Amino acid sequence: MTIENLSRNKSFGGWNKQYSHHSTSLNCQMRFAIYLPPQTLTGAKVPVLYWLSGLTCSDENFMQKANAQRIAAELGIAIVAPDTSPRGDDVADEDSYDLGKGAGFYVNATQEPWKSHYQMYDYVVSELPALIEKTFPVTSQRAISGHSMGGHGALTIAMRNPERYSSVSAFSPINNPMNCPWGEKAFSAYLGKDKETWRQHDASELMKSATQLLPALVDQGEADDFLATQLKPEALIAASQVSGYPLQLRHHEGYDHSYYFIASFIEEHLRFHNEYLKAM
Amino acid sequence: MTIENLSRNKSFGGWNKQYSHHSTSLNCQMRFAIYLPPQTLTGAKVPVLYWLSGLTCSDENFMQKANAQRIAAELGIAIVAPDTSPRGDDVADEDSYDLGKGAGFYVNATQEPWKSHYQMYDYVVSELPALIEKTFPVTSQRAISGHSMGGHGALTIAMRNPERYSSVSAFSPINNPMNCPWGEKAFSAYLGKDKETWRQHDASELMKSATQLLPALVDQGEADDFLATQLKPEALIAASQVSGYPLQLRHHEGYDHSYYFIASFIEEHLRFHNEYLKAM
Repeated sequence: MTIENLSRNKSFGGWNKQYSHHSTSLNCQMRFAIYLPPQTLTGAKVPVLYWLSGLTCSDENFMQKANAQRIAAELGIAIVAPDTSPRGDDVADEDSYDLGKGAGFYVNATQEPWKSHYQMYDYVVSELPALIEKTFPVTSQRAISGHSMGGHGALTIAMRNPERYSSVSAFSPINNPMNCPWGEKAFSAYLGKDKETWRQHDASELMKSATQLLPALVDQGEADDFLATQLKPEALIAASQVSGYPLQLRHHEGYDHSYYFIASFIEEHLRFHNEYLKAM
Repeated sequence: MTIENLSRNKSFGGWNKQYSHHSTSLNCQMRFAIYLPPQTLTGAKVPVLYWLSGLTCSDENFMQKANAQRIAAELGIAIVAPDTSPRGDDVADEDSYDLGKGAGFYVNATQEPWKSHYQMYDYVVSELPALIEKTFPVTSQRAISGHSMGGHGALTIAMRNPERYSSVSAFSPINNPMNCPWGEKAFSAYLGKDKETWRQHDASELMKSATQLLPALVDQGEADDFLATQLKPEALIAASQVSGYPLQLRHHEGYDHSYYFIASFIEEHLRFHNEYLKAM
């Protein structure tokens, strides 16, 4: 397995890097970004926060706009940001921003024309962490977070794999994709018509029946244009009450769906994850 | 004079906003960004840091990538980021990234075809601050900073107008544009062949003969690809020794020309400016 370094930028005493590698689960060449905090330069191994981005994003948006490196450097946490879909000329796509490239939805597609590449669930849960833990000075302690579609990804992946993560958080997640336009469109295309298969990728459905519980923090802006139609945090709150899930869901007056919101609160998410990563 | 609000995003308890207005000095419609810290929401007037961006940038790059809002919110400082050139279909341009649109170099052009719009010096020194101070809850206390071409702009504008600013700083500035390819190309086009007119826009030339001195902080990355050919900090250091200018110029091992460098040290620049803004 070859992994190619594409860029490196020093950031808060550590290094922000991009790599390219061939993904066996996605069957294409993929790019990811990693922030290695300064502690790794003197021989330490550090835990990893996986960040899953939203629709239209690549591995770059979070690293350029959230300024998470400042706190990651202080706490000694690596950050890994995968791309949001398979990429390349032979990967199926369509014209809209919310299906196809940039919109993998962190599921394993079972339908044509998507299934030969769109296996983002396997990539994020298994292949990428194995590669990261083999290649970089990191431990197998993991936390996971994300934004919007990536918040959906973080919550569903953490709840289906609670043994793999110490904590989960999200900004403005799609909380109940079975019941919103973005989710219905993506799940119909990637998973087909049988809605029973959708439940395994719906954070609110998973939270209702969860038995192995993880610390969970969700931040939601009250001026978010997608709040009522796409995000539906009330579904996640109701689900947490069914299972007694330790969910802390906070509403923030005036904040919207943008990276300005994420940058404003990312410090609190990193400190939240750090508490459980260090306790492991 | 009408000024139109184009966007607003809540950020660290304050507001990041973009506006459009007709500039009389530039003779075109211009966009700028402003960060208003939370103190302004409860009636306070705050000082302003003007940020001048580098080649190819607009009013957006700094606001999205530097994460200066966090410290501006803490200290109670507004930030104003103008665009880097006049804009619009009837504004002269050429194909290269380092002349024309996105490359105004913060001078008043005297040559055709540039002079009818490229008056960025007047815009940044006079027109924009007058508009800002008339429109927003700010004082007339000002500091100025910038990156690369914008670092050149900040240093030269501050030294030519020391009564208008309390302090100046720069990241990776073009310190001696009369003697580097970027500067020679831009000054030839905008100012013509007479190099005597260039001296008024060369930070090292101005610093040699400066008599009214401002606190000045410059940060330079040692892994900056443009260091030797375009930036030449040694010229500014030599100039500061001639006039006894209070220049603090710091070299940073491993850092490059990108916003990852700026984000890593912007906090120190804001705290530097705050010291002198608050002392006024």
